[in-house]
Order: sequence, then C-alpha cells, then structure tokens
Amino acid sequence: MKDCLFCKIIAGEIPSSKVYEDKDFYAFLDIRPIHPGHTLIIPKKHCNDLMDFPKANESNIMEVLKKVGKAVLSATGADGFNLGMNNGKASGQEVMHAHFHIIPRFKEDKLGTWPRKKYEEGQMEEMQKRISDKV
Amino acid sequence: MKDCLFCKIIAGEIPSSKVYEDKDFYAFLDIRPIHPGHTLIIPKKHCNDLMDFPKANESNIMEVLKKVGKAVLSATGADGFNLGMNNGKASGQEVMHAHFHIIPRFKEDKLGTWPRKKYEEGQMEEMQKRISDKV
Repeated sequence: MKDCLFCKIIAGEIPSSKVYEDKDFYAFLDIRPIHPGHTLIIPKKHCNDLMDFPKANESNIMEVLKKVGKAVLSATGADGFNLGMNNGKASGQEVMHAHFHIIPRFKEDKLGTWPRKKYEEGQMEEMQKRISDKV
Repeated sequence: MKDCLFCKIIAGEIPSSKVYEDKDFYAFLDIRPIHPGHTLIIPKKHCNDLMDFPKANESNIMEVLKKVGKAVLSATGADGFNLGMNNGKASGQEVMHAHFHIIPRFKEDKLGTWPRKKYEEGQMEEMQKRISDKV
C-alpha cells in the first residue's frame, strides 16, 4: 500500500535487517528492540491488523511464527519469548500494517507486567454473556 | 494432561466463564483480567507453548482468534486489543498449557510499554546473521 512503511520494507525501498522471507511473509529485526533479536513478522499482502489478516495466509502463519520463534530463541540464548500483536492505536500499534512481535526474554530481565483487576460481584457473568453473544 | 489446570477447565472439572468452544478450541475469561473482558483461547489438545502447538490446529486458530477478538472488541467497547502468547516461564507464562490472551485496550488507559534499546555499532548485523542462519 502506498505510504505504508512495511510495504516499502517488503519492496526493498527502505532497508531492513531481514532474517526470513518466503512467498507470503517477511521477517526482520525491530530497529528499537526490547531486547536484541526482537523480530517482526509481517504478511506481504497489506492488511491493517488481525481482523483483516489475509485468509489465504492463515494456514501457514503459525509455521512461520514457530520457525522464527525457535531461531530467535536459539540465536539469542533466551529463556523464553513473548509473541504479540497489537491491534489498533490504543493497543500500542504504531505501524498500521499487521505485524507479530517475537520478543526474546531472559530470566530476571525485570520487564514488568500489567496490573491485574478483580471482577466485581456479577460483573464476570455479565461480561461472559456479552462476549459469548457476540462470537 | 493430568494436573494441568487448563485441561481440567476444558474437561469441566474446574469451572470457567466460557465464551466460545468448538471441536479444537476453548475460550474463557481470565479470572484476573488486565481489563474486564480479557479472554484466553486454548487448544483442547494439550501442548506447552507455540513450539509444540498442534499442527492439525494451525489452519483454524487464526479464524478463532479473529472471531473472539472481534467479539471482545464489540462486547467491551474497546478501542483496540493486544493479542499475546507467553512462551516459557521467563516470558511470564504461568500455566504451561499454550494460551493466547486477548486484552481489550482503551485510549488513555495508561498501561505502559517496555523500554526500547538501541543496537550498538555492528550488533544488529551480527544478530541478523545469527537469526537468519538458524531459521
């Protein structure tokens, strides 16, 4: 898509540190990593987020995530990794071309977690009903 | 798997607030949500994490994530959501049965982000080579 940073990276118009490519996907290092080795995986066909992720690519994205995840673990010596995909600006998505993050993690790397809430009396049942009605 | 909390939830041995179920997947509310509506999606076949996610379920997980993600957005009125999967204890994984989080997000909900690093001279090229050699 015109004026899309990631489409330009795929097209080679903007340089990137590519670590994997096949006919459907492209993976490269995040230039501002949470830890070195932080990798982004994107579909070549432009889409904004999970909701319009290409149906034709659904069956092979998991294999690519596994493959790149394993390679990041092995190359960085990490103890685990976060797989993440931000959907919409409010969630922290900065480039509006769907992308998965693979973030290597290390024991005691002290990255925090978001605080957890408690449901109030009856609130959980109401939420359960509301979501299951929409699925 | 014996002694697996999520396998017990799927089997109905431990109660949960189910929002979706099909032959391969089960989705329910996280009891300690980051925001109300925070949902977990798990494969019925036990696996630890992304690396041993059932190959037979790869083609349909994306449809389920889309479906549940849309329902969470709609039911909560969220402005976006994070899709996440923690792999390994070091990444924050607490239950060793693979699960995807759908976390509804709201404009100005003030949940922080992890700090970003910079690659030192030559470090990015070295990391690129190391990962691409392993993929």
